[in-house]
Amino acid sequence: MDFHPACLPWLKNGDRVLAGLSGGRDSVALLLLLHRVGVPVCACHVHHGIRGGEADRDARFSRELAVSLGIPCDEVRIDAPALAGQWKMSLEAAARRGRHAALEECALSRGCKAVALAHHQDDQAETILFRLCRGAAGPKGIRPVREGRHGLVWLRPLLHLSRKEITDWLRSIGQEWCDDSTNGAPCCARNILRREALPALDRALGRRVAPILARSARLAGETAAALDEALAALELIDPQGRLYLPKILAFPHALQKAALHWYLRLCRVPGVTEEGVRALLGIIAPRGPARCMLCGAVTARRRERRLWVEDAAGQLLLPGRGREK
Amino acid sequence: MDFHPACLPWLKNGDRVLAGLSGGRDSVALLLLLHRVGVPVCACHVHHGIRGGEADRDARFSRELAVSLGIPCDEVRIDAPALAGQWKMSLEAAARRGRHAALEECALSRGCKAVALAHHQDDQAETILFRLCRGAAGPKGIRPVREGRHGLVWLRPLLHLSRKEITDWLRSIGQEWCDDSTNGAPCCARNILRREALPALDRALGRRVAPILARSARLAGETAAALDEALAALELIDPQGRLYLPKILAFPHALQKAALHWYLRLCRVPGVTEEGVRALLGIIAPRGPARCMLCGAVTARRRERRLWVEDAAGQLLLPGRGREK
Repeated sequence: MDFHPACLPWLKNGDRVLAGLSGGRDSVALLLLLHRVGVPVCACHVHHGIRGGEADRDARFSRELAVSLGIPCDEVRIDAPALAGQWKMSLEAAARRGRHAALEECALSRGCKAVALAHHQDDQAETILFRLCRGAAGPKGIRPVREGRHGLVWLRPLLHLSRKEITDWLRSIGQEWCDDSTNGAPCCARNILRREALPALDRALGRRVAPILARSARLAGETAAALDEALAALELIDPQGRLYLPKILAFPHALQKAALHWYLRLCRVPGVTEEGVRALLGIIAPRGPARCMLCGAVTARRRERRLWVEDAAGQLLLPGRGREK
Repeated sequence: MDFHPACLPWLKNGDRVLAGLSGGRDSVALLLLLHRVGVPVCACHVHHGIRGGEADRDARFSRELAVSLGIPCDEVRIDAPALAGQWKMSLEAAARRGRHAALEECALSRGCKAVALAHHQDDQAETILFRLCRGAAGPKGIRPVREGRHGLVWLRPLLHLSRKEITDWLRSIGQEWCDDSTNGAPCCARNILRREALPALDRALGRRVAPILARSARLAGETAAALDEALAALELIDPQGRLYLPKILAFPHALQKAALHWYLRLCRVPGVTEEGVRALLGIIAPRGPARCMLCGAVTARRRERRLWVEDAAGQLLLPGRGREK
């Protein structure tokens, strides 16, 4: 079992890595694999304050596994229901955000440069379908490597492996794990996707669609990146950070829209929508209105064949460098 | 019930339109709607030589409906099983191809400028999922307007409407239709997608995902179009139709790949794959090998900081204009 190639530079440089350890099959496999190839690894188990005795069992199992391997293991308790109320989000989303914050803090206190999470190809397919059905412009997956705050890198070294490959490997070495009984319940979107939608797609196509969806997401990500790089190469921004309109006005329609969307993202305008881009299309022509409001109290203005954006205080929002999301 | 906005110019110009009429709910609604708004319309029923007596019933129903509306109606018989054998494809694919050929011939002989088909939003969602799970790089839908051979335009005026909206409308005017009993059978990919995968996605997300998937496909199509337009705007091709490499070599990785893929498509290299693009990446650097083989016996060559492609006979494949698929 190899790690995802994109993760290798961060796993081979000798830096200490924090592995999230729920006690489930994926994170157990991840910890064992990291340990076996000699990555200096610490573990962190996050107890979410839900799932009662089962969660206590998982915490105990994780602690004992780490001790048996001689790996330092921290246990962090969060109160996911309280966080959900406080952050006004679903229990699932609050648990994830709280867990990530706990892992970040733990990694920093242990001197780790990277956090490794155990998402695999089936998680990836679920995420792609979920985001697509919620309105993502294309199939958007989890990235194998993501740079986070405080210089921490978040890694998914198992992202190219199927759940079955991971399970088969654990069985082949006789390693046990804890099953989460709520994974089977048809209670939440993720579980319905995992237990009903993806198997139906597999049946319809006569094979596993997870690797195909993962490839689609990778290619779509490359297309989006190439478009951003092409827009940067077209040199559309003047030295003052404003968009130079004569070039844009000569573009065909789809490229005009893409250039305006890209500029708003570069300027970190919050919550850019298709409607916002359409509003901009209405003010870039020389004889149209010279300003429009965007979301987040941002105003776009045109003058002297240039376009720029200002916040509510009239402060210029200047474009950052590189690709912004 | 309005037609898809992209179809309106072709439905309002007074040209005669051929409507495909299977006798099913969607095509019955389409014919009635075209007739009601005064589009000069002919109908064509294609009998596929399968589904026995049920197909004969559909043909009779279609004929009678057209007669009752005073609309000229042709009936064309094809032998889908024989075509499947002859063309070495599935019965479903052969039936579709044979039907399209029959509609094309019928439209030309009737002096029609456009063919209208009754695909709707749920068909669109199925197609998007189907293509995505077969390896499309992004969500790719059916286009509402497509220009075909012999100057014929293929229209899908109901593509923005749900199956339920169409059914409700037919019921509201008391119009009957024929049900295809094989639509319900879990025999083929399409039916499993329609009857199992899409409903599971609806349940997971708590709402109809079809309009969301349709929007995703539209946005992904715009991104792909914008990338092609951006590549054209970057002026990468020299007056002799060869790719000028110094510009390409200065690009970041994703844009390099996109530029090479775009050039191969412009030159109509058949069956361009990611592997083919990778092979090109290996020969564009000044000190690498100066040629590589692509699929379809096409050779790519580099000389004097230019790249071009040749067919098996050593004939230059020159880039066409505009966007090629």
